[in-house]
Amino acid sequence: ESGALTQVKRILNSGLAPVDVAHLIESSPPKARKLLWELVDKDLEGEVIQHLSEELQSHFLSDMSAEEVADLTADMDTDDVADMLQQLPERVTQEILESMDDQDRARLEAIMGYPEDSAGGLMNTDTITVRPDITLDVVLRYLRRHKTLPPMTDNLAVVNRQNEFIGILPVSKLLVSDPQQTVREVMTTDSRVIQATQHESEVAKVFERHDLVSAPVIDASGKLVGRITIDDVVDVIRDEGDHSLLSMAGLDDEEDTFAPALKSSRRRLVWLFINLLTAFTAATVIGLFKDTIEQIVALAVLMPIVASMGGIAGSQVLTLVIRGQALGHISNANINWLLRREVLIAGINGTLLALVISLITFLWFGDPYISLVIALAIVINITFAMLAGAVLPILMKAKGIDPALAGSVALTTISDVVGFMSFLGLATLIVL
Amino acid sequence: ESGALTQVKRILNSGLAPVDVAHLIESSPPKARKLLWELVDKDLEGEVIQHLSEELQSHFLSDMSAEEVADLTADMDTDDVADMLQQLPERVTQEILESMDDQDRARLEAIMGYPEDSAGGLMNTDTITVRPDITLDVVLRYLRRHKTLPPMTDNLAVVNRQNEFIGILPVSKLLVSDPQQTVREVMTTDSRVIQATQHESEVAKVFERHDLVSAPVIDASGKLVGRITIDDVVDVIRDEGDHSLLSMAGLDDEEDTFAPALKSSRRRLVWLFINLLTAFTAATVIGLFKDTIEQIVALAVLMPIVASMGGIAGSQVLTLVIRGQALGHISNANINWLLRREVLIAGINGTLLALVISLITFLWFGDPYISLVIALAIVINITFAMLAGAVLPILMKAKGIDPALAGSVALTTISDVVGFMSFLGLATLIVL
Repeated sequence: ESGALTQVKRILNSGLAPVDVAHLIESSPPKARKLLWELVDKDLEGEVIQHLSEELQSHFLSDMSAEEVADLTADMDTDDVADMLQQLPERVTQEILESMDDQDRARLEAIMGYPEDSAGGLMNTDTITVRPDITLDVVLRYLRRHKTLPPMTDNLAVVNRQNEFIGILPVSKLLVSDPQQTVREVMTTDSRVIQATQHESEVAKVFERHDLVSAPVIDASGKLVGRITIDDVVDVIRDEGDHSLLSMAGLDDEEDTFAPALKSSRRRLVWLFINLLTAFTAATVIGLFKDTIEQIVALAVLMPIVASMGGIAGSQVLTLVIRGQALGHISNANINWLLRREVLIAGINGTLLALVISLITFLWFGDPYISLVIALAIVINITFAMLAGAVLPILMKAKGIDPALAGSVALTTISDVVGFMSFLGLATLIVL
Repeated sequence: ESGALTQVKRILNSGLAPVDVAHLIESSPPKARKLLWELVDKDLEGEVIQHLSEELQSHFLSDMSAEEVADLTADMDTDDVADMLQQLPERVTQEILESMDDQDRARLEAIMGYPEDSAGGLMNTDTITVRPDITLDVVLRYLRRHKTLPPMTDNLAVVNRQNEFIGILPVSKLLVSDPQQTVREVMTTDSRVIQATQHESEVAKVFERHDLVSAPVIDASGKLVGRITIDDVVDVIRDEGDHSLLSMAGLDDEEDTFAPALKSSRRRLVWLFINLLTAFTAATVIGLFKDTIEQIVALAVLMPIVASMGGIAGSQVLTLVIRGQALGHISNANINWLLRREVLIAGINGTLLALVISLITFLWFGDPYISLVIALAIVINITFAMLAGAVLPILMKAKGIDPALAGSVALTTISDVVGFMSFLGLATLIVL
């Protein structure tokens, strides 16, 4: 038993790369996670923890003392340390900051002064800067005095004596240009520079659209404060994709596949209770037509069809619009066209579905009135649900509500209420 | 009118960056798209089209002659040209290849020999290579003979005379090392090298886990064939995120927010008809219990609650597992733990929901038997649906079926059938 443990310990600490150790921990149930983490050598903990999800980071950090955390963060990127500390209680963070040396603390505080989801929270402070009036030859000799360059250094920031950002010197230009030229002659000034207060999703868009590897970050006064690298932007992009998917199922962004049962249970219950309201609203609508159903029980058999087809058609539009918003495709200039198109599609698809459904209904129950009622209800519900699918995310975004989170439950409420109301209401009017 | 057009033309061709022109075209309805595209100058078309979605690329390309396409692709990255051509009919592709010069054609054919979603289909052929036995000083002088370096050149590939890959020379090492050292002394040989046949999602994982900017690609015999850069990997990551989200709503991966109505209508109709089968299956189950419903109409009022709560609880698990699969977290080693946890959560959440729902039901209808029946049905359906949410994606993936596409409709069928069957069946046994 202890022989097996020793072997696992050896694999964790010398066989696997830290990123693979992190992946192994992420993919394990809670008890195995704890055991694996304890087997990781002290001097590798920092490398492993930076690849873990925020949820797991704060879980492991909460068991450590301020000194241990300070030791662990010694070799980490400043932005990763900042992200990690921001999840801890204020008191603990202060304690950890105090146990660091002055330079590390100053760098961390610079980053932690900005919101976690801003460019400032995403940046590193390890930028290499050069002055505009020196020659490339001097730059090359200056670089050679370094043992290593910061990761992903594809350009150097050009600043003046006041540390104000002037432009960038791409490493590729440094390599192909005549060493006697000055930085000013070679640098580019039209490069994409990021404001420290920009939101991280804006930063991701700039990186994606201009194929950047790194970009300088400046503060409101134009001073260089750091730089953002593509590896952190990739994490933002991955998280954005996750966000819509998880939110639409009422799951937390930081949802952990192997969270303990009680923790998962509590989180998911909130969503189930919100949806319970929707379900009872639908039931109340059906309750209004109890007498009708008592007389024509076929209505009870068919009513879920009307509600579910509306729900499906609406959620297609909802998903499309939420994604269009994320890509920045949807604006006031094209909403009207989009709504008109959705009405047109609702007309076409609603009519086709209504014909098929009412034909099947006629073959099943042999009642032309019920067939007519279900056809009308399908067209009405699909049209309403599709319009709701397009309008809800636009309204919600304008009001600052997250459409990925609130959109699907609002849409279900609408398609259930309109579906049951139109089907049972029309049946009461026409069939009875 | 023509004055306004001239102004739009000026903005498109000199005011905006090509990537912004592409974004404008993507965000416009079909007619405006066509007009905007026609206003783009011939020599900017190549730069604009590479930023458009595949759907729009093939739309615009289909109107052009082989020569026009060949001209347009002249300044584009080889991998982007390959992607574009792979969407055109085989005959047209051949014609275009024949109208290119020999070098371009050879490069393109090398890429197009690999599947579009493989590393080979993603790579570029513009790698700068160096031999191991030369000094860094020679490398620096060799680079200075270039006017520019290929974009995102953060390392040079080291190859032998047979073009076999030996290692990489990171540009950052080239800059900080003594110029008299040889490439062999400085190069790294443990770098992540990509096999041309690897799937693009594997490539994305390697890039993400090791924070790469570019990586060399080799063929089966170890020869260097190209290199992959992070900008193309970012597209893969973005598309992967989109894929799960869109598939779960039955939308196409390449779904275009502003596709013409008829095109959208046709695509979405397929999904609606698949879901119609589910809806009629559910209706058939209800139909089995017509007599019961006729006697106790409260059942018709309450039955959608049972089905929908199961659907919601199941889709939370489904989403979690699909995402866990995408992240590579789920394996045979932890499935059992996951299933046991879901049963435990189903027990907790199912019981809590059952209590609340049966209490409301009792207050509403005053019948303890109906309250008991709905409580039991909720526990049964939530347990079944949650297990289905966990098991379906695992089975589907093993069978090569896409869980994001097929999972939600299969789950809805199960939660409807089990929900109606258990609720109405128990009611028939207990209440009647």
